[in-house]
Amino acid sequence: MPKLTIAKKNCDPVTVMQWGLGAMGSGMAELALSKKNMKLVSAWKKRPEGQGKDLSEILGNSEPTGVIVASDPFEEIKRTKPDVVMMASCSTVKESFEDILKVIDLGCNVVTIAEEMAYPWAMEPELSDKIDRAAKEKGVSVIGTGINPGFILDALVIMMTGCCRNITNVEASRVNDLSPFGPTVMKSQGVGTTPEEFQKGIEDGTIVGHIGFPQSIAMIAEAAGIEVDTYEETREPIITNTYRETKYIKVEPGMVAGCKHIGYGLKDGKKLITLIHPQQILPETEGTSTGDYIKIEGDPGCNVSNQPECPGGIGTMAVAVNCVPFMKDAKPGMLTMLDLPLLRIAV
Amino acid sequence: MPKLTIAKKNCDPVTVMQWGLGAMGSGMAELALSKKNMKLVSAWKKRPEGQGKDLSEILGNSEPTGVIVASDPFEEIKRTKPDVVMMASCSTVKESFEDILKVIDLGCNVVTIAEEMAYPWAMEPELSDKIDRAAKEKGVSVIGTGINPGFILDALVIMMTGCCRNITNVEASRVNDLSPFGPTVMKSQGVGTTPEEFQKGIEDGTIVGHIGFPQSIAMIAEAAGIEVDTYEETREPIITNTYRETKYIKVEPGMVAGCKHIGYGLKDGKKLITLIHPQQILPETEGTSTGDYIKIEGDPGCNVSNQPECPGGIGTMAVAVNCVPFMKDAKPGMLTMLDLPLLRIAV
Repeated sequence: MPKLTIAKKNCDPVTVMQWGLGAMGSGMAELALSKKNMKLVSAWKKRPEGQGKDLSEILGNSEPTGVIVASDPFEEIKRTKPDVVMMASCSTVKESFEDILKVIDLGCNVVTIAEEMAYPWAMEPELSDKIDRAAKEKGVSVIGTGINPGFILDALVIMMTGCCRNITNVEASRVNDLSPFGPTVMKSQGVGTTPEEFQKGIEDGTIVGHIGFPQSIAMIAEAAGIEVDTYEETREPIITNTYRETKYIKVEPGMVAGCKHIGYGLKDGKKLITLIHPQQILPETEGTSTGDYIKIEGDPGCNVSNQPECPGGIGTMAVAVNCVPFMKDAKPGMLTMLDLPLLRIAV
Repeated sequence: MPKLTIAKKNCDPVTVMQWGLGAMGSGMAELALSKKNMKLVSAWKKRPEGQGKDLSEILGNSEPTGVIVASDPFEEIKRTKPDVVMMASCSTVKESFEDILKVIDLGCNVVTIAEEMAYPWAMEPELSDKIDRAAKEKGVSVIGTGINPGFILDALVIMMTGCCRNITNVEASRVNDLSPFGPTVMKSQGVGTTPEEFQKGIEDGTIVGHIGFPQSIAMIAEAAGIEVDTYEETREPIITNTYRETKYIKVEPGMVAGCKHIGYGLKDGKKLITLIHPQQILPETEGTSTGDYIKIEGDPGCNVSNQPECPGGIGTMAVAVNCVPFMKDAKPGMLTMLDLPLLRIAV
């Protein structure tokens, strides 16, 4: 029985602030509290309820954390000087921009789960360059991540290209179950609408489907040198044949149980990258299992599946918190998952 | 149709020397020649046949490459000053040690497919530290990689822990087909032996099974903070019920078609990491499909498959060459796949 020698690298503990304490932010704070090499030093929530109380009251834990929920995030950053601020408060680059610049100016690294921040250049190149310059000036790094965008439909796809000699086409899909999610997600995916309402919602922008396809496609394109120039998408209602009911919503047969969103990266009109994301509640009522799938055509190709899906909420908390230990030593600037070392569970 | 903006990072071309021109080395040279951002500047083979000739004659290509196969590798490194030397000539740290130190001393980065070099500390901590120190002194980096160890049963497993909040157990298996491989591999896996000869081969060390389990297990353990202290393994003959025949070998029913090798990483006697690798010729003759599988128990767990397997020879060439572009900017020292950015196909 040979002894195994493991080259233990020094892992300095990292101090963290949780920015935003909704469902995702609370989960991230809870996860950070559970990590040996992380110390949660501060937390902020936008709404006044809960400010001034111990974080444990927000999280529903009996054991006090010693972290008092702050009312002014910037003053709290100055006071607690976290290495990394974990932001969970919005989805777009535009919404994130000003707060991130202020956090950078205070000398902190940022991990955000704002979907568009996973590859902000895709749709907001000017704002991205501004964040990049500000971060470089201050010597800090900023990354956007999560389960998707950030992992399943981009980083994992890219990792799989690493065992290919050449590739000609990428298709990845994620069949998930929205049942754990609340009213906001139900609305943005059109769950519970009639097919007509769904169509109207797509047109007026109240039903959005998945946020992240242009970002994931651009990340894959950069990584694999696939010269896509255009993004296209389709969003179709998933009309249920069965009655589906969750804690938050009831959907009768003939109504919409979710949104089948497909994004394409094209070059000269040819679809080179296809990402498929049918998001619905309770797909198994019609015999559909959840799962994550990657098909790469190439030499050799890949045919990867992960069944069931890595659950969206938990997966996003995990990926975001698992990125935190890399931020202190990362090169300064606006980063993507392409810039971090091989992702791994934080200890 | 929105335009997609891709933040193209500067990719300086990297110059490469191929060290060793056996089946694997030739494939790596060929692949490097096909990459836009790589320039193969030199090549060396150990045996005199082919030295002094254009590399194309070794590769069986009609188009001359302009690279004349060298007879003295160190003089050739001095003459051509490659950024990275791709070594494909042996399997162990001990066999690699002296040559790697000399290449380091000449100021070159190294990518080697010697299996034990994927995590050399596992069994050779002193030699690993010596390589690490020498590389740091010279400001160059050294990595061992390949499909396995290097990718399927370690790096990809580690990547999947990145979407977990916690993990309790890791099991991964790789069911492959040895048919493309020649006599050396047939011998080291015991293909074509009787069950008795197999047992004797294991005892006298002529049948080795897979090389790389202690390395993969130590890499996973370091990455995920799993405190394994001991390595155990079993090696059983895969006795065929069907007649199996490849270009290199014929196996009658009742004879050995391969070696089922299992490696365990234990802590206090408990198996925390299990890697399973049944290697045989033509598994499909008995209804077994090839494939790569990862099961992580945790929150959430993962259940990944890649079917069919990423083929071993091609996969090793791909992973090794795909690591090359990272070496110039990597931090100096003896590295592992844990130290490189997210792997991706080289352009």
